[in-house]
Amino acid sequence: MHRKIPKFAYEEVADRLESLIEKEVFQVGDRLPSVRSLREQYGISISTALQVYHRLERKGLVEPREKSGYFVQFSRRRHSWLRENSNPDLVARPVTIAEIVTEVRDSAAREGLVNLSSPMPPPELLPAAHLHTAMLQTIRQFKPDYLRYPMDQGDERLQRQIAILSARWGGTVSEEDIVVTHGCMEAISLCLQAVAKPGDTIITESPTFYGFLQTIQHMDMKVLELPTNPVTGICLDKLETALGRRKVAACLLVNSFNNPLGSCMPQKEKKELVQLLGRYEVPLIEDDIYGDLYQGEHRPRPAKYYDRKGLVLHCSSFSKTLAPGMRIGWVLPGRYRERIIRIKYMQSIAANHFLQRVIAQYLETNRYERHLKKLRHALSVQMMQTLKAIQHYFPEQVCSTCPQGGMTLWLQLPPKVDSYLLYQAALKQDIHLTPGLVFSTQKDTYRNYLRLSYAEPWNSAKEQAIAWIGQYLKKPH
Amino acid sequence: MHRKIPKFAYEEVADRLESLIEKEVFQVGDRLPSVRSLREQYGISISTALQVYHRLERKGLVEPREKSGYFVQFSRRRHSWLRENSNPDLVARPVTIAEIVTEVRDSAAREGLVNLSSPMPPPELLPAAHLHTAMLQTIRQFKPDYLRYPMDQGDERLQRQIAILSARWGGTVSEEDIVVTHGCMEAISLCLQAVAKPGDTIITESPTFYGFLQTIQHMDMKVLELPTNPVTGICLDKLETALGRRKVAACLLVNSFNNPLGSCMPQKEKKELVQLLGRYEVPLIEDDIYGDLYQGEHRPRPAKYYDRKGLVLHCSSFSKTLAPGMRIGWVLPGRYRERIIRIKYMQSIAANHFLQRVIAQYLETNRYERHLKKLRHALSVQMMQTLKAIQHYFPEQVCSTCPQGGMTLWLQLPPKVDSYLLYQAALKQDIHLTPGLVFSTQKDTYRNYLRLSYAEPWNSAKEQAIAWIGQYLKKPH
Repeated sequence: MHRKIPKFAYEEVADRLESLIEKEVFQVGDRLPSVRSLREQYGISISTALQVYHRLERKGLVEPREKSGYFVQFSRRRHSWLRENSNPDLVARPVTIAEIVTEVRDSAAREGLVNLSSPMPPPELLPAAHLHTAMLQTIRQFKPDYLRYPMDQGDERLQRQIAILSARWGGTVSEEDIVVTHGCMEAISLCLQAVAKPGDTIITESPTFYGFLQTIQHMDMKVLELPTNPVTGICLDKLETALGRRKVAACLLVNSFNNPLGSCMPQKEKKELVQLLGRYEVPLIEDDIYGDLYQGEHRPRPAKYYDRKGLVLHCSSFSKTLAPGMRIGWVLPGRYRERIIRIKYMQSIAANHFLQRVIAQYLETNRYERHLKKLRHALSVQMMQTLKAIQHYFPEQVCSTCPQGGMTLWLQLPPKVDSYLLYQAALKQDIHLTPGLVFSTQKDTYRNYLRLSYAEPWNSAKEQAIAWIGQYLKKPH
Repeated sequence: MHRKIPKFAYEEVADRLESLIEKEVFQVGDRLPSVRSLREQYGISISTALQVYHRLERKGLVEPREKSGYFVQFSRRRHSWLRENSNPDLVARPVTIAEIVTEVRDSAAREGLVNLSSPMPPPELLPAAHLHTAMLQTIRQFKPDYLRYPMDQGDERLQRQIAILSARWGGTVSEEDIVVTHGCMEAISLCLQAVAKPGDTIITESPTFYGFLQTIQHMDMKVLELPTNPVTGICLDKLETALGRRKVAACLLVNSFNNPLGSCMPQKEKKELVQLLGRYEVPLIEDDIYGDLYQGEHRPRPAKYYDRKGLVLHCSSFSKTLAPGMRIGWVLPGRYRERIIRIKYMQSIAANHFLQRVIAQYLETNRYERHLKKLRHALSVQMMQTLKAIQHYFPEQVCSTCPQGGMTLWLQLPPKVDSYLLYQAALKQDIHLTPGLVFSTQKDTYRNYLRLSYAEPWNSAKEQAIAWIGQYLKKPH
């Protein structure tokens, strides 16, 4: 159903040039082959060759100069990348960040802010017209049954589509293995309730999504943050040590494109992770919400792929790819299925019926893959533009992650900068940022870190905002 | 906005005749005034007089006999009503009924059952066509903004409509006092989390809705059930004693049309309840989901009306009146507003955007009052028909409540009958019932009680089901 979409010729050639820039065969400032020579070299038409450069230009990699051709403008190699493991102290502790997270989130509600904080695709990147059609079809065909209570576990047609989507990463789930939820956050909350109790310890990446920390705080659980590599994810050796030393109720990880790091654990390590947790019988709550937003060639397999014991609770949603406002997510709960269904009923009965059907209807048209491809491209363009602006405006000491997917950059600022003060100062300039301290239970560990989202299309207001941050960072602190 | 809808002449006259039957001026078997004499007596047309009898006939109060006119067929007075307080033992205890509730609920999923269990209006009693129109309008006007995340607290247009609805019971809430939720069950769950911790004691009516018990069980809280009158609700003197003796975290009550009892606390007592809880600073979680489904002349005021201290958390939803499947409810959280908003975010971010707007759009057309009036009439007809069948088929010792609203009857069966065995035997006959034991933490208190729902239109399958139950009850036990 969801076949792989072949590349166009211009995409093929653009990717080759991009990899040459990546390898610094062409370096910043170099002139690239002319449109004519591209035509000869690759046997493509002039208009295709122009499309190649247009694509690279949109990505911020090259710029045209009048009458002289295209020049390399940005190189990943030249960027100061953050490659070191994070270094949280290895103490499980209760969470106390709910207040500050609420403050930071509430401040985003003001009108007219330049949004560098929300990892949420805006409507212009979503398939609004096709969802619109799906809604009209659902209304026509499904009336008046959408008024009824849905089945607790979810609408069967949507469950089937989710099973098909899962097959893309090698999942072999059937409809009854799937519980539809009110977004991914409900899925995570249900999983935590199913596997852990107040006082229990949950292992997370460090840094990790503040929403997780808030939920864990609310449930009176403790968090043990482990060192995490910005490229490969949580450090398995540290995890093994931690599991050997103490009782752990669960791991809550974003294995593919952790928010804020954008890290993705390699396949081999995901397999080791599942085996390791299996030996200790510790469940893994895997948030795979960013899994489809990869920048490379293939969708990464989630840890769930390697799950033989039913210990992986795999959570995801359509909020990052189709419609944040529809609040439809799901969990593949493995051996915790009965418990999850029961808690779900107690907490909110079931997900709403109509929108489950709308999404099923949309997915049945087989347009999702094509939309995802577009969305990934838009995100990759936006990421490159943001990185380029960072390289241009920020002081050299600033390091950033090189996300392999997702929608966020994680920046290490000069050691004396307090990103919370930066956040406050930026807010006065109508710029919304997310300071590092909300991503950890440990107040000072990420004091000089910052998350920037590139979920929204690039524009001059964003460039000016980044220029302003650059100036702020260059002032003595 | 929501004006009172005047009665038609035929309704006026039918209500008068009904009250004469009620007072046994006309007794079962009596012949009622002829159509002609009605015309003269009340100055109405022949066709209006016929409408009067048609209405009473649909309610199951009278039956036509060929060429002889209309005869009284049912009298509330003749029914054996359950009027005594329930008598649970007054011990706070952990809940352990989740398993059995799950079993009873799951058994309802089978196709082809005669449904005497679900207190849920079927689509034919809901304004499907008007909701349909509201959906189309919302799609047209709101696209593509429904794709965005909604505000945590709710869509402003829906909040405004909920504020207007609240004005009907004298509420003076403004938009920011309202938190929109994913149905009423989420509202209740949020409230419990906001005011109580594991181990805390929650006071409920006895019997009470099993969904509450499951949620309390999941949260590791204890339940103290108090004696409750089937007409006037929880006994305030027992409540006062209980509050004086022990620490109570909250009361969780359905003051207007408790499920399963249908009881409604009189205004004066609601006021006393709020004052009493105020003296002890104990919050009241008030589930008002059935408030609009009254059988009398006026909508009862909820306890929230008397709340001066912000201690009443008032929960409701559109699930019983507009669209169960849409999962849109709300809470007026009083002084717990900030906490509720925060927990809501952690648990599921926000309610879905599109359907909030659809309901707002529908409410703005001012059709809700008229729909509610129809729905209440349908429910009252269905209740009378069910009561009549009970009177006809059940042994005389069976007592039932005389609900003042809601959708359920609560029956006291002969002492030796075990309603769980009855439930199992009925299931083999494709009849779905709800046995008494799921409505209490105390296994034996309601062993010989049964809940019957009259949410669905009356038909011969229901009559046969009730006849079958009657036979079962008449067998020696």
